[in-house]
Amino acid sequence: MRRAIELARQAEGFTHPNPMVGCVLVKDGKVIAEGFHARPGEAHAEAMALKEAGENARGATAYVTLEPCNHYGRTPPCSHGLIDAGVARVVYGMRDVNPVAEGGAEALRKAGIAAELAPVEVRAECAALVRPWVHAMKCWRPWVTAKLAMTLDGYTATPSGESKWITGPEARRRGHDLRQRTDAIIVGSGTVLADDPGLDPRPEGRDVAPSLKVVMDSGLRTPVDAKLLATPGPVLIIGHDDADHDRASALEAAGAEIALLPGADGRPDLKEALRYLHSRGLVDVMIEGGGTLLGAAFDAGVVDEVWAFVAPVLFGAGRPAIAGRGPESLADAFQLTKVETETLGPDILVRGLKERTAS
Amino acid sequence: MRRAIELARQAEGFTHPNPMVGCVLVKDGKVIAEGFHARPGEAHAEAMALKEAGENARGATAYVTLEPCNHYGRTPPCSHGLIDAGVARVVYGMRDVNPVAEGGAEALRKAGIAAELAPVEVRAECAALVRPWVHAMKCWRPWVTAKLAMTLDGYTATPSGESKWITGPEARRRGHDLRQRTDAIIVGSGTVLADDPGLDPRPEGRDVAPSLKVVMDSGLRTPVDAKLLATPGPVLIIGHDDADHDRASALEAAGAEIALLPGADGRPDLKEALRYLHSRGLVDVMIEGGGTLLGAAFDAGVVDEVWAFVAPVLFGAGRPAIAGRGPESLADAFQLTKVETETLGPDILVRGLKERTAS
Repeated sequence: MRRAIELARQAEGFTHPNPMVGCVLVKDGKVIAEGFHARPGEAHAEAMALKEAGENARGATAYVTLEPCNHYGRTPPCSHGLIDAGVARVVYGMRDVNPVAEGGAEALRKAGIAAELAPVEVRAECAALVRPWVHAMKCWRPWVTAKLAMTLDGYTATPSGESKWITGPEARRRGHDLRQRTDAIIVGSGTVLADDPGLDPRPEGRDVAPSLKVVMDSGLRTPVDAKLLATPGPVLIIGHDDADHDRASALEAAGAEIALLPGADGRPDLKEALRYLHSRGLVDVMIEGGGTLLGAAFDAGVVDEVWAFVAPVLFGAGRPAIAGRGPESLADAFQLTKVETETLGPDILVRGLKERTAS
Repeated sequence: MRRAIELARQAEGFTHPNPMVGCVLVKDGKVIAEGFHARPGEAHAEAMALKEAGENARGATAYVTLEPCNHYGRTPPCSHGLIDAGVARVVYGMRDVNPVAEGGAEALRKAGIAAELAPVEVRAECAALVRPWVHAMKCWRPWVTAKLAMTLDGYTATPSGESKWITGPEARRRGHDLRQRTDAIIVGSGTVLADDPGLDPRPEGRDVAPSLKVVMDSGLRTPVDAKLLATPGPVLIIGHDDADHDRASALEAAGAEIALLPGADGRPDLKEALRYLHSRGLVDVMIEGGGTLLGAAFDAGVVDEVWAFVAPVLFGAGRPAIAGRGPESLADAFQLTKVETETLGPDILVRGLKERTAS
């Protein structure tokens, strides 16, 4: 199963809107075939492994990180494939919670094949592979990662606004890797006006479709010559529904797609915007900044994961990485769990998931 | 020499105002005696080792973490002791920079004893042993460690002021260890009024003299029933020199010592206060908070080391751990070097030294 997890990870950032899945076929204690889901529309992990094994699959055990699907989508159901190939036993790492595709294990059992959940010690890893995808399914919005790049005391710029290269090249490279793995990179219009970022994932030698670049821009202030309109990949600008239609036309002419959404105080509602992105099939998005947008995201309770790149610098005052309202009480604060730290050159990466209290 | 460093460390927090020093005597490839400086007034490391070795010291090599002293203080010069004992060679980890005590190696050489600096790879560790002490000597003020306990975005309290137990028990225990090792714990009067801390180092089973508890309290607002006046150890309250003398008398009656120092805006000058502490023989002090005092310390450029206990929590707004003016430009920001991170239960300890640009 560990090998199946490794295989699944090979496609990180490529399977959208499908989850990452890996499969290993074992017979007489030996691996006879491997597969992973590489891209939407291409073979599922099981199909790839079964094809490699051919007739040899008969009597084998299939280890799959996710319960085999049981529906006709762009590819036929994997449960049927495993049955037809004569596999003797299927061990899966996580139950499929997609209401459309679930029921694979049941179908296998009905066909006389032993289908069982993997040992508990690998299940968490299998679940982590599909976390954003399961989340999107359950919560009707994408998995939201907040990316912060800040000083040890939480600032992204000095009081006068100086901000370039707070973190070093290793941290920035890691940030670009992260961009490449999400379906969309979201920034506020303030960041576009102040820093004019390209939001280019700069993938290193990988043939990857660029993430959607999203600007939360109530009044459509994004300049038509903004750098992010020139870098590869599509741009979506989300404005408020009373925004100026001429501005919208000008930005459309410059290559952006415009969505105008309702919301109080002349701002598109962030939850509404996320639901809209979800309706377009986005499963995993990242908010990069600035402070106002991140503040709104934390205040709205829509952040699921945090990647904080922390520079070993202290300002004592400046522009905060997250400019929110702050919690009413300590119990309401955003608490991270499964925290991991990593040293990236002079900087530290602290990442973790939002702790969810039992409800 | 590694063993000598280990020995020196045994006295961490006890040698004040002397540095930590360790000594190992080796003869025919075997350790024949060991010593370390345990407490001021007691034997220096060399004397302790020489006493243990007795006649056997003749012809031995002495490994000492610091150049042997060459003056009569509370104990006779170690250079003489080594000469009299007939030691053949002395390897020392760092040159003594104390103008009163320096010249030990020179004296040894004049007496025909080989005296040489240790290999470069252990010198940094030997220097680290005496860092605060060397600093105090050079800069005419104690080594200042800023201790921060904050959220990942740099806050110590919610916007409404809620702040208890931001970090967990492991981090707090580490903070107490640190208190025990410094000569003084400094807090601002705002912290005394808001949190009424005991500033008790709570040493665990070690017979250690309590650190001096210092309150920076311009207007002598510390209540006479403040908890820190009741916990073990002396209290020094530093006020402005135009503070009310009746308040001063009341606090003296409550057991505090009062120092009134000059300074602009009705506040005692922080550099002046540190110089005053240095004049009392303090070598290594720690500022615990609150934000205003820490802000002033960073703005004044007097912080030498930072211990930041970071809780995996984000507030988005609140009371900053360091409430300073912030840097004029990125180049003026407080940059940490020799950064080490450590996991303490759910929290992270990030510590480092101030990066000093060549001057």
